[in-house]
Amino acid sequence: MVFNKVEGNVTAARGFSAAGIHCGIKKNKKDLALIYSEVPAKAAGTFTKNRFQAAPVIVSRENLQNGKARAVICNSGNANACSGEQGLQDARRMAALTAEMLSIDPGEVVVSSTGVIGQYLPMEIVDAGIRQVTKSLSPQGGPDAAEAIMTTDLISKEVAYEVQIGGETVTVGGIAKGSGMIHPNMATMLAFITTDCAISTELLQKALKYTVDRSYNLITVDGDTSTNDMAVMLANGLAGNAEITSENQDYQRFVEVLQRVNTELSQKIVRDGEGATKFLEVRIEHAASFLDGKTLAMGILDSNLVKTAFFGEDANWGRIVSAMGQTDVEFYPERVNIWLGDLQVTKDGQGLHFDEDHAKEILKHKDITIRVDLGMGEETVTAWGSDLSYEYVTINASYRS
Amino acid sequence: MVFNKVEGNVTAARGFSAAGIHCGIKKNKKDLALIYSEVPAKAAGTFTKNRFQAAPVIVSRENLQNGKARAVICNSGNANACSGEQGLQDARRMAALTAEMLSIDPGEVVVSSTGVIGQYLPMEIVDAGIRQVTKSLSPQGGPDAAEAIMTTDLISKEVAYEVQIGGETVTVGGIAKGSGMIHPNMATMLAFITTDCAISTELLQKALKYTVDRSYNLITVDGDTSTNDMAVMLANGLAGNAEITSENQDYQRFVEVLQRVNTELSQKIVRDGEGATKFLEVRIEHAASFLDGKTLAMGILDSNLVKTAFFGEDANWGRIVSAMGQTDVEFYPERVNIWLGDLQVTKDGQGLHFDEDHAKEILKHKDITIRVDLGMGEETVTAWGSDLSYEYVTINASYRS
Repeated sequence: MVFNKVEGNVTAARGFSAAGIHCGIKKNKKDLALIYSEVPAKAAGTFTKNRFQAAPVIVSRENLQNGKARAVICNSGNANACSGEQGLQDARRMAALTAEMLSIDPGEVVVSSTGVIGQYLPMEIVDAGIRQVTKSLSPQGGPDAAEAIMTTDLISKEVAYEVQIGGETVTVGGIAKGSGMIHPNMATMLAFITTDCAISTELLQKALKYTVDRSYNLITVDGDTSTNDMAVMLANGLAGNAEITSENQDYQRFVEVLQRVNTELSQKIVRDGEGATKFLEVRIEHAASFLDGKTLAMGILDSNLVKTAFFGEDANWGRIVSAMGQTDVEFYPERVNIWLGDLQVTKDGQGLHFDEDHAKEILKHKDITIRVDLGMGEETVTAWGSDLSYEYVTINASYRS
Repeated sequence: MVFNKVEGNVTAARGFSAAGIHCGIKKNKKDLALIYSEVPAKAAGTFTKNRFQAAPVIVSRENLQNGKARAVICNSGNANACSGEQGLQDARRMAALTAEMLSIDPGEVVVSSTGVIGQYLPMEIVDAGIRQVTKSLSPQGGPDAAEAIMTTDLISKEVAYEVQIGGETVTVGGIAKGSGMIHPNMATMLAFITTDCAISTELLQKALKYTVDRSYNLITVDGDTSTNDMAVMLANGLAGNAEITSENQDYQRFVEVLQRVNTELSQKIVRDGEGATKFLEVRIEHAASFLDGKTLAMGILDSNLVKTAFFGEDANWGRIVSAMGQTDVEFYPERVNIWLGDLQVTKDGQGLHFDEDHAKEILKHKDITIRVDLGMGEETVTAWGSDLSYEYVTINASYRS
């Protein structure tokens, strides 16, 4: 099928505007973002599984229960997490004031925060900021919003695609932030996606969940362990396509374009990893299940020693098999074949005598694909990650005795 | 009860000798160790759970099935892992030749290897080495053996204790090696313990397993995921105590002294972490189970962001709660209390306003205790780890936006 990549982000789809301002939570960077749909919209969300749920996560879950939302208010610089009853009051206040200023229902507002944990929001500053940001909405405000949700990100992340659905041009666009940290147990991952596609709440939620599991949850900086993570989507139906209410071809198209948007945003997060010099794609082939493939791919990409080996451009497949072997996935080592790029380095679980020069050539590139064939089932899972920077490698890359 | 710490290691107990030589697997460091009991001995072992099991692990499992062993032959510099049928033959050859030289049964020899994965052992060199090391045995050979099993370790690790059991002086001593790497998914952890205590094979195995779970498996460099890990113990009964055949007071004493030996050896491994500037003790109190406590303690100690916070001497308890929340342990955040040293920083899952100067004082020390009260059950679990060195912190410690 054909997608058309287009300029823009959360305001690319019809009827959406956005804004991003500096209200004073951070010293001088933008720290308050707003996304708004001029008409009522269906909404869906996926949230962190961390046992410590930040106040905005709790409030946004509540507000999305009816499957509707028109606005997303998000601050950076303070996570409003581990902030107790006061934090919940503050998150509700953010929704209420945003709703008041936009003349919508507080239940139509998604609240999001990212930043330092365990501090109360400076609500006077936030209040003034919300009054200002709600007056700054514009169809050109997407880039400002993308910038205002950044924490340690070095670059803002936005993407938009067009696709034909039911004879109409449907646009899906989004912004995201991830951490610049390489091992961000704590780094919030936020993604806000908008579309003018007409689709039922149930299928919107299903499509979002499916594509999030295959994008943000397949990168080592997926942050699905943070206290504040959320991926939220608004669909206002202004494209005029017949509402998608069954898993027909229109639905498949919608899922595919949404997957593209989420995959590109998640890859931008990985490429923004501080100190990263490599973009690693791990493809697990012939896995018995998606979960098996995901667990193995993430196990490889989360291994500091695998990361340091790639930084050192060292074809150390031993660290790859060990990272696989330490997961709880059942597989047969003697069936495992591994390729770096087009070079097979492991056959039937044992090392091959390969051309070191060829390996060096492959490892010199910024983008490297690690392909692992398990010989178990029919599932293929692809995940992405980065290497570890020199400073850390000076300690680890010399594992030779 | 009273232990007496004594000089020595695997040769501290009656009837044991050892040797460590340079045979040529490594360029110039010692790389072949031997431990030997002059009389038949009971033996027990615990091995890596990695799905890729190195050849020596497979062979040693076989040889320990009858609960007897008199010798441990261990090379460093080559792990003999992912080496297929050839690797198994080489490991068996190491046992056979060692047995031949010592005039014992090949089944009485434990084989161990640590080093690079996926390369065949240089057997001519190893053969010559075994002929030499078996002629170098001496009651003073322990330190050489401790040195010969090192890989990236900076210092060798040995300890020995005496305790009165059944009216006799029983000695338990050991040597260990861990990785110098901070996050050693791949670093082999080896521990060899000897004792002259008379004890049944069943109880020896039980005592070893129990104490290993509470020592080597409670440090972040536990390496229980490596392809080659093993903790092996020989007990030759020369102390002359009545053989321990039930879980009586003698058994309890034996377990306690063995726990002390294994805990000290495992702590030495942590303190040897390259670049480590802090020795972190995490104590989880009132956990619902040992496993819950272990999972939370290790989750905190394995978090790169917790480690970098302590390197930066930053009382960032938010990273601790997030590391806890991302585990699969069920607990109530609103019950969680956390102390750094004697300073409570978290009460009922929320931050406390604490004396920053007092916190700085505590965080300045090399040894820091993090105490977490879950308010769930009666289990207390203590684990140990290190911080992350400056080079890595330059990327991570500034997580403030």
